[in-house]
Amino acid sequence: MTDPTVADLGEHALIARIQSRVPPSPGSVVLGIGDDAAVVEPDRGSLSVLTTDATVEGVHFDRTFTPMTAVGHKALSASLSDLAAMGAAPRYALVSIALPDTQLVSDLDAVFDGLLALAARYRTALVGGNITRSKAGLFLDVTAVGSVKRRRILTRAGARPGDDLYVSGEVGGAAAGLAWLQDAGPDQVPAEAAEACRDRYLYPEPHVRLGVQLARNRAARSCIDLSDGLADGIRQLCRTGGLGARVDAAHVPIAAGARHQCEARGDDPVVTSLMGGEDYELLFTASPSARRRVEAARRLAGKPTLTRIGQMTKDAALVLVRDSEETEIPAGYEHFRA
Amino acid sequence: MTDPTVADLGEHALIARIQSRVPPSPGSVVLGIGDDAAVVEPDRGSLSVLTTDATVEGVHFDRTFTPMTAVGHKALSASLSDLAAMGAAPRYALVSIALPDTQLVSDLDAVFDGLLALAARYRTALVGGNITRSKAGLFLDVTAVGSVKRRRILTRAGARPGDDLYVSGEVGGAAAGLAWLQDAGPDQVPAEAAEACRDRYLYPEPHVRLGVQLARNRAARSCIDLSDGLADGIRQLCRTGGLGARVDAAHVPIAAGARHQCEARGDDPVVTSLMGGEDYELLFTASPSARRRVEAARRLAGKPTLTRIGQMTKDAALVLVRDSEETEIPAGYEHFRA
Repeated sequence: MTDPTVADLGEHALIARIQSRVPPSPGSVVLGIGDDAAVVEPDRGSLSVLTTDATVEGVHFDRTFTPMTAVGHKALSASLSDLAAMGAAPRYALVSIALPDTQLVSDLDAVFDGLLALAARYRTALVGGNITRSKAGLFLDVTAVGSVKRRRILTRAGARPGDDLYVSGEVGGAAAGLAWLQDAGPDQVPAEAAEACRDRYLYPEPHVRLGVQLARNRAARSCIDLSDGLADGIRQLCRTGGLGARVDAAHVPIAAGARHQCEARGDDPVVTSLMGGEDYELLFTASPSARRRVEAARRLAGKPTLTRIGQMTKDAALVLVRDSEETEIPAGYEHFRA
Repeated sequence: MTDPTVADLGEHALIARIQSRVPPSPGSVVLGIGDDAAVVEPDRGSLSVLTTDATVEGVHFDRTFTPMTAVGHKALSASLSDLAAMGAAPRYALVSIALPDTQLVSDLDAVFDGLLALAARYRTALVGGNITRSKAGLFLDVTAVGSVKRRRILTRAGARPGDDLYVSGEVGGAAAGLAWLQDAGPDQVPAEAAEACRDRYLYPEPHVRLGVQLARNRAARSCIDLSDGLADGIRQLCRTGGLGARVDAAHVPIAAGARHQCEARGDDPVVTSLMGGEDYELLFTASPSARRRVEAARRLAGKPTLTRIGQMTKDAALVLVRDSEETEIPAGYEHFRA
């Protein structure tokens, strides 16, 4: 390949490529490219956590079944979830929006309805942004700024062999919900379970309080939010330290609708749910000696479900254990990869 | 209009509409929506200035004559110019990019070549971002974070009747350069003057040092950067205080190439240059008693050209004075407006 396209390289390679070209950071950059968010210290003792996420029509949402309120909600949710994964409390947001001339103002209102309702819930002030034309389709970039104390930053690195691996809530629901929204889901499923999945896809709730509490009492050693699926999240937590993980398939908390959908289709619910993106759950590791602190953080965060799904290992293999059988954890979703 | 489109309303009305729906800001928001950038105080005494700008293929640049290095340069330049207009020193940048699968990696490299070269010149650390697919065209959002002392923030408000009105450098050059790049410019013009205009369009230099110095010695009372043209900038500085301005046509510093282009076309060079966008000069007001401080700031900023083009008036009229004739200053460029 003398002149490869971005699709030839794939998302992770592209990020690594850009990262390699960035000069050494000044001392006030606590954490640069490569984690859920960046951490900077513009003034001594005052840390800001910065993250930006794009939402692109035709890539991240399909207008035919995604209400504009959901577009606004999801766009901010992705950024707040990134902050949560760093243990940072959200403070401010900037919104950059590009949209075609023909877009209805009522659609724009709906985008901000969804966005501002979520912002109010998590005390995030919309302080600025940009609005401009696009030739086709709606583009939305949300930048969120959060704050965190220096010794409480949660990163993707920091896991140690023997750490427990936890995931919040349930996985696979958003991907299953998307299939139903695309009218590609099976009918013979309890309506309530399917509805919960659609709702999870359209209005994911960022785990803001859980992230902050896990950082505050230093229960977790590493953390990531599940935008690209559980399998991808596990890979990311293992990568920095050259670690591996053993995940117990029986313990993976699969959304009921996702399980029903897989059964109706004859798919493997564990593998499918490991691959499904956009659940925005938190995946984190903690020392077995910190189980009480994990429970305390959970309580202070409003008691979300937490499930211990496995352990981190010194051996770099990524192992899915099912009954006595061991398989490799599948690769996750990557933009620009077919 | 029961269901207007965004084009029906226009950019300023859309921003006002969004602004009106944002709830009251918490105390740590020093300045929210509506200026060149937002100012927040996450911790007492530590101010951050936040801005985000979008660059959209087919709207902000045409791939056929805009090198990808210029795309990256211009995208960051717009954000650094916003910070300069607030008197803030740039610190950090985040880049969100959406691009089609078929985009060459070498193009992406060129975007970051342009962006990182400018970032290095103004000590701006690229700390994070996002990369994703677009269905068509390249979208680039740059968020920049700067810092400024509380009593030194420069805003669009703050002008008083009788203030001198200054503009840095020259205007009209970028718009004239764009015409030549589009092959729509006249030929009978000195090649050097045309080249300077093309260069101004492709690689505008943000007035980072001037903005910081004007804020530091409190020479300026209000300031804006000229992304949408001098006429628009004057309107913005007048709007908040309900002021007007008298601008002396003979003093408007028109780029030589722009003047030649207008003469060859039979256009009015003053009116044309008042309308032309993307020069990224600074427009600011200062008390006549502050002329020495303005000069001191200019010297410390590396001696850019500054021209006093008129005065702010209590009377809200926007007057262009030419010989003995008075006309209204034309309206500026607005996105979504034909």
